[in-house]
Amino acid sequence: MFNEELKFDRPLRWGMIGGGRGSQIGYIHRSSALRDGLFQLSAGAFDIKPEACKSFGVNLGVDSDRCYSDYKVMFEEESKREDGIEVVSIATPNKFHFIMTKTALEAGLHVICEKPLCFTVEEAEILKEIAEKNDLVIGVTYGYTGHQMVHQAKKMIENGDIGDVRIVNMQFAHGWHSEEVEKNDPGLKWRVTPEASGPTYVLGDIGTHALYLAEVMVPNLEIDKLMCSRQSFIASRAPLEDNATVLLKFTNGAVGNLWASAVNAGGIHEQRIRIVGSKASISWWDEHPNQLVYEVQGKPKQLLDRGHGYLYNDDSAVSGDRIGCGHAEGLFESWSNLYQRYAIAIDAKIKGDKERFENTWFPDINAGLEGVRFIENCVRSSDNESSWVKYK
Amino acid sequence: MFNEELKFDRPLRWGMIGGGRGSQIGYIHRSSALRDGLFQLSAGAFDIKPEACKSFGVNLGVDSDRCYSDYKVMFEEESKREDGIEVVSIATPNKFHFIMTKTALEAGLHVICEKPLCFTVEEAEILKEIAEKNDLVIGVTYGYTGHQMVHQAKKMIENGDIGDVRIVNMQFAHGWHSEEVEKNDPGLKWRVTPEASGPTYVLGDIGTHALYLAEVMVPNLEIDKLMCSRQSFIASRAPLEDNATVLLKFTNGAVGNLWASAVNAGGIHEQRIRIVGSKASISWWDEHPNQLVYEVQGKPKQLLDRGHGYLYNDDSAVSGDRIGCGHAEGLFESWSNLYQRYAIAIDAKIKGDKERFENTWFPDINAGLEGVRFIENCVRSSDNESSWVKYK
Amino acid sequence: MFNEELKFDRPLRWGMIGGGRGSQIGYIHRSSALRDGLFQLSAGAFDIKPEACKSFGVNLGVDSDRCYSDYKVMFEEESKREDGIEVVSIATPNKFHFIMTKTALEAGLHVICEKPLCFTVEEAEILKEIAEKNDLVIGVTYGYTGHQMVHQAKKMIENGDIGDVRIVNMQFAHGWHSEEVEKNDPGLKWRVTPEASGPTYVLGDIGTHALYLAEVMVPNLEIDKLMCSRQSFIASRAPLEDNATVLLKFTNGAVGNLWASAVNAGGIHEQRIRIVGSKASISWWDEHPNQLVYEVQGKPKQLLDRGHGYLYNDDSAVSGDRIGCGHAEGLFESWSNLYQRYAIAIDAKIKGDKERFENTWFPDINAGLEGVRFIENCVRSSDNESSWVKYK
Amino acid sequence: MFNEELKFDRPLRWGMIGGGRGSQIGYIHRSSALRDGLFQLSAGAFDIKPEACKSFGVNLGVDSDRCYSDYKVMFEEESKREDGIEVVSIATPNKFHFIMTKTALEAGLHVICEKPLCFTVEEAEILKEIAEKNDLVIGVTYGYTGHQMVHQAKKMIENGDIGDVRIVNMQFAHGWHSEEVEKNDPGLKWRVTPEASGPTYVLGDIGTHALYLAEVMVPNLEIDKLMCSRQSFIASRAPLEDNATVLLKFTNGAVGNLWASAVNAGGIHEQRIRIVGSKASISWWDEHPNQLVYEVQGKPKQLLDRGHGYLYNDDSAVSGDRIGCGHAEGLFESWSNLYQRYAIAIDAKIKGDKERFENTWFPDINAGLEGVRFIENCVRSSDNESSWVKYK
Repeated sequence: MFNEELKFDRPLRWGMIGGGRGSQIGYIHRSSALRDGLFQLSAGAFDIKPEACKSFGVNLGVDSDRCYSDYKVMFEEESKREDGIEVVSIATPNKFHFIMTKTALEAGLHVICEKPLCFTVEEAEILKEIAEKNDLVIGVTYGYTGHQMVHQAKKMIENGDIGDVRIVNMQFAHGWHSEEVEKNDPGLKWRVTPEASGPTYVLGDIGTHALYLAEVMVPNLEIDKLMCSRQSFIASRAPLEDNATVLLKFTNGAVGNLWASAVNAGGIHEQRIRIVGSKASISWWDEHPNQLVYEVQGKPKQLLDRGHGYLYNDDSAVSGDRIGCGHAEGLFESWSNLYQRYAIAIDAKIKGDKERFENTWFPDINAGLEGVRFIENCVRSSDNESSWVKYK
Repeated sequence: MFNEELKFDRPLRWGMIGGGRGSQIGYIHRSSALRDGLFQLSAGAFDIKPEACKSFGVNLGVDSDRCYSDYKVMFEEESKREDGIEVVSIATPNKFHFIMTKTALEAGLHVICEKPLCFTVEEAEILKEIAEKNDLVIGVTYGYTGHQMVHQAKKMIENGDIGDVRIVNMQFAHGWHSEEVEKNDPGLKWRVTPEASGPTYVLGDIGTHALYLAEVMVPNLEIDKLMCSRQSFIASRAPLEDNATVLLKFTNGAVGNLWASAVNAGGIHEQRIRIVGSKASISWWDEHPNQLVYEVQGKPKQLLDRGHGYLYNDDSAVSGDRIGCGHAEGLFESWSNLYQRYAIAIDAKIKGDKERFENTWFPDINAGLEGVRFIENCVRSSDNESSWVKYK
Repeated sequence: MFNEELKFDRPLRWGMIGGGRGSQIGYIHRSSALRDGLFQLSAGAFDIKPEACKSFGVNLGVDSDRCYSDYKVMFEEESKREDGIEVVSIATPNKFHFIMTKTALEAGLHVICEKPLCFTVEEAEILKEIAEKNDLVIGVTYGYTGHQMVHQAKKMIENGDIGDVRIVNMQFAHGWHSEEVEKNDPGLKWRVTPEASGPTYVLGDIGTHALYLAEVMVPNLEIDKLMCSRQSFIASRAPLEDNATVLLKFTNGAVGNLWASAVNAGGIHEQRIRIVGSKASISWWDEHPNQLVYEVQGKPKQLLDRGHGYLYNDDSAVSGDRIGCGHAEGLFESWSNLYQRYAIAIDAKIKGDKERFENTWFPDINAGLEGVRFIENCVRSSDNESSWVKYK
Repeated sequence: MFNEELKFDRPLRWGMIGGGRGSQIGYIHRSSALRDGLFQLSAGAFDIKPEACKSFGVNLGVDSDRCYSDYKVMFEEESKREDGIEVVSIATPNKFHFIMTKTALEAGLHVICEKPLCFTVEEAEILKEIAEKNDLVIGVTYGYTGHQMVHQAKKMIENGDIGDVRIVNMQFAHGWHSEEVEKNDPGLKWRVTPEASGPTYVLGDIGTHALYLAEVMVPNLEIDKLMCSRQSFIASRAPLEDNATVLLKFTNGAVGNLWASAVNAGGIHEQRIRIVGSKASISWWDEHPNQLVYEVQGKPKQLLDRGHGYLYNDDSAVSGDRIGCGHAEGLFESWSNLYQRYAIAIDAKIKGDKERFENTWFPDINAGLEGVRFIENCVRSSDNESSWVKYK
């Protein structure tokens, strides 16, 4: 059971960039960070319009003079204060992720950034290097990976419950953009605009979620080659795709298949992961995250359910339930679990507790970097007539 | 979409009784109350052991001298302060609910109490009277009724989407006590001990949840007669039942069936409500609370999903999503929605805003009273050889 | 795997009463009886209109002079032939079942009759006596009980896989008659006409199916008392009910709940059986008959699937698959399995092979008799203000 | 509703090759062909061992002298008889399909052959030519395509209910050969032996089923290019694959993805088709063939169920139910529907009724030919490092 009593000597002083009025992603960041009392919202650059920023921040309890319309000013001003922020979350459109993360790291701040962390592997490696040099944490919000059943799957696979992994099927295939819904909506339009969104749409926006879920479940898989076929069923989205399929070959002989789509009409999320092993398979679906289907060849199918005593007790990662079984947990618990992990990792860094840091799983710079590498390879294949490309 | 910006001029000053170290129910109260910033945890009688109470409360951020080992002392001391608590949540075993609620109301505090609110209709009416006299709010934590799809069902029924209501099937039938698990566990034992639990076990503990869900969905139904058959499959639980079936006849000719059980082996919660109308039926299951099954006779079955544009926009009750559709919400969102409603109602009372108060739905004293009335009638029938009894 | 090679020295000479042109029930009788080559359609009183009977029968391959418009003439004429029929199936409206079965038995014919076999226990006992005296078989077409997973459930319960049986939940609750669909349709009207249908509508028409499924799964349960509440939501159906709930107490302390309905709007069949034991539960649903849900308290839910090696090999009843697992079997296989059992039983009778007869499970006169006893008791309770009545 | 009264002046005289004692596929051919009385089992080469053939055939009612151990002898002898067979079904291992079909056609017989019809497009074209020249029917037993909901899907797509087809996802992925189960089992071994099975294992054995289902649902799609990646997770199966993925591009811009596997551990059949259109999607799963999921973007998901009045009445293909809705139909009904279609087509040919022949849908020589073409292309791609190949 969840221990709400985990507290540091004081909450981490936390700032935000973006996520202002009406932002759904801003809300989930705040709801998750503040839930366990490990963060305290101290400052924010919620909006580039000064008035909007201030009125929004103050309402949330931030001091008026710590509501900044420019994130660089925030970094500067906060660094002058005794009680200045020590960690910042970035919830802006993709194109700002790299520069904001870089600037924050250079300002000595730990960073929690929306995915994709940046647009190129080269950029990701720059961030990694600065973070390492400055001994700072980069957390990336692969928000589905805080679900307990994802870690149950990881542990089952680790323990050999499905045998050798052979096939990894991943999909995140919704249908919300089956029509050109972005036509007159700038809030959607940027996602299919390369300058703002990066070199891909659905691959980066949702495909990397499914990929990272599989990476968490089967951490030792290494991609050897991949091929990617992508389409723009709404022609105006080209060169960005609204549908893509990626085939993968892993170094150990396993194979993978990833389907990312925004035109899977009628699909709500349809984010599903199926890991097939030599003796059993495991399936997980994000719309019903408290369940896990476990199918042992030649045995009755099993439906595992969050919170039961028969599950592995996974102390190395997301350890606890927040409530007993049967009671539905949801995405907010997953995010809260992740923010708890970020806090533990940052606190360990601050206190120089290397061992604790190393034993604290969370979606980190490498998660961000590998997502970008995946996208780069997909584009390389796609641009080369969907041929197979060597991954590294 | 949810508006996290709803704020009062200041958060309500809130105290708790019970819900100390290791309490799951304590955690969900706090997590829900604190989430939207409408309450502030100011004081608490978390534990009757002074040291345990203080160490727990302080860790949660409560001032040491506002951690009380005696709730009556808390009421007294807090009433002396300018910034004393104005509302208290009660999360103790059932037998204390009445006396604590009564004492709190007499001390001028609004109350949010676990269900059952008390053991008899007479007691409930006493509480109702004091609350009315003192112009105070009593909220009862029927925690499942904050789910949005429950209110979607309510609205659909109100709008005639299923025709005239004919049959109301309710069940909450888990299997966790299929064996005598309480034998050496005082934490479970009290539930089957009449002095601590009241005149029933499963009927009051879980049956009333299902009943109240149906009452929310179909508010205009009035029970005319009922009959109740109850069993103690684990004999040592007698006279308290671990399984019960109640048949109901409503004044308008509709009928109902309620199954409450702790020995439905393998059932996790199995809390399901099905309302059958003259042209369609609606079904809801608390383990997957974001869905609603809508079956129109002679048409394809429909699966409604939280957060979609095709749902009714129900401003009169729980209005908003906290996140877009597809993303799973869970029990914490349901509770948070309720605590938000309690806060709005209390704030309206404080400000003397009668209209707002009256337009604010929440599980109130009447919800608590009707749950007790139901239990009393069930016992009356059961004690009379499971014969039919007139309800009022 | 199914052995299609089971053959007698010759197929049984088989006749039908009813089931003529356009009759769905006639088709399933013929399709099932003829499938395994154990019966041969030799004669028929398919229709009381001579021309219709003849044209229909001849088209099915019956000799013109063995198509009779009067079943009594059929019995008479066939008894004069060397190759006269030896078994007759009755697929007429309920009111003819008793007299036709009685007449057939008196004519020395084995009988396969639709349920309900008759309207009163007294009638059933008369039939039983004649059948015993004349050493004849009476089969009753409880057509769902030929499904393999029903027998898997039976075997699991017999083997103690769910512990002691505590609760038996049965339902067959469709919504097809939510409106007064029979108003201008004589083909439906007879079902709600006491003279044609008997003393009940849904209890006899579908409730007994669910009851008998439970009896097959848990053969040693004996009803001690029951109470029945029934409604006519379409008023013109009174005194016949279109909705009913029956509570049962068994002699061993187990309890039961049966819901039969024709006004469960949107329900297609919703015939479901759940047997709850002291350590696990089993659930079966006739719309997906190849699956069985097995829930052991505290373990992952299991979904058993027809045709797998992990199932019990049930030689004492319906033994075999007709095709490998994964391939859907349906109601026709269930019926074919039953007709195979009737054939084996009749062949055993003909050959005087008592042991084989006794080892051949099939829905027999006792199945028919108990269905009628159940209905009688339901009516008795219902007519007595839904009070509890002693069963025998 | 199904019309069992469809009869010709006499049943077609029918023979079989293969499908002898213990053959599951033999049973389903016979059960389906004989069910509606349109075929009569007149002769058979059930087994190459004369005694086994005779004892088996005689038990099924075939004249002893029409049980042949050599199919060529059967063709010869039967052709001499007035009442010789006019149609033959071939249910032997794959390697015999071509030569037997060719010989049968040359002997003037209509043919119903298991899939794959042959190993190469060239062979298929030879068969097509002979059939056309001799005015004979070739039916191929793609046994899943007689399910009514498959034709409902076809009609919905034809009527524009999902908009323009964009994505076609096909899979048939079971787990029965996750281990080397064939090691000591010749009955399984031939499937992974190229000489007996052809150039592929799972692609031809099951992948073509899924492909043809999609072809039936969306008949106007033409493959432009494909790429195929295949694996032999059990190394001894190489060069035959036990897992394969095929990506397809259609000439109209739609794309496809086909997954065929025998190592999808725990998968029973997992044959699923999902057709995504510009406004809705349709999904079908062969393990629950009476349902169809219809998801319109932005609307509640719909579950369509066999036999309902809201379905299209599809006279051009499989027209009728065999029983009312709710009652489960299964694979036998699908096969029976196909055999009914073969019979109508053959009868039309015999009677020279061109119009009827042309209006009678059934899986014909083109279905067989396209399956083979698909396999050839898959192998060509796979052998060329899984590169894209032009389809025609």
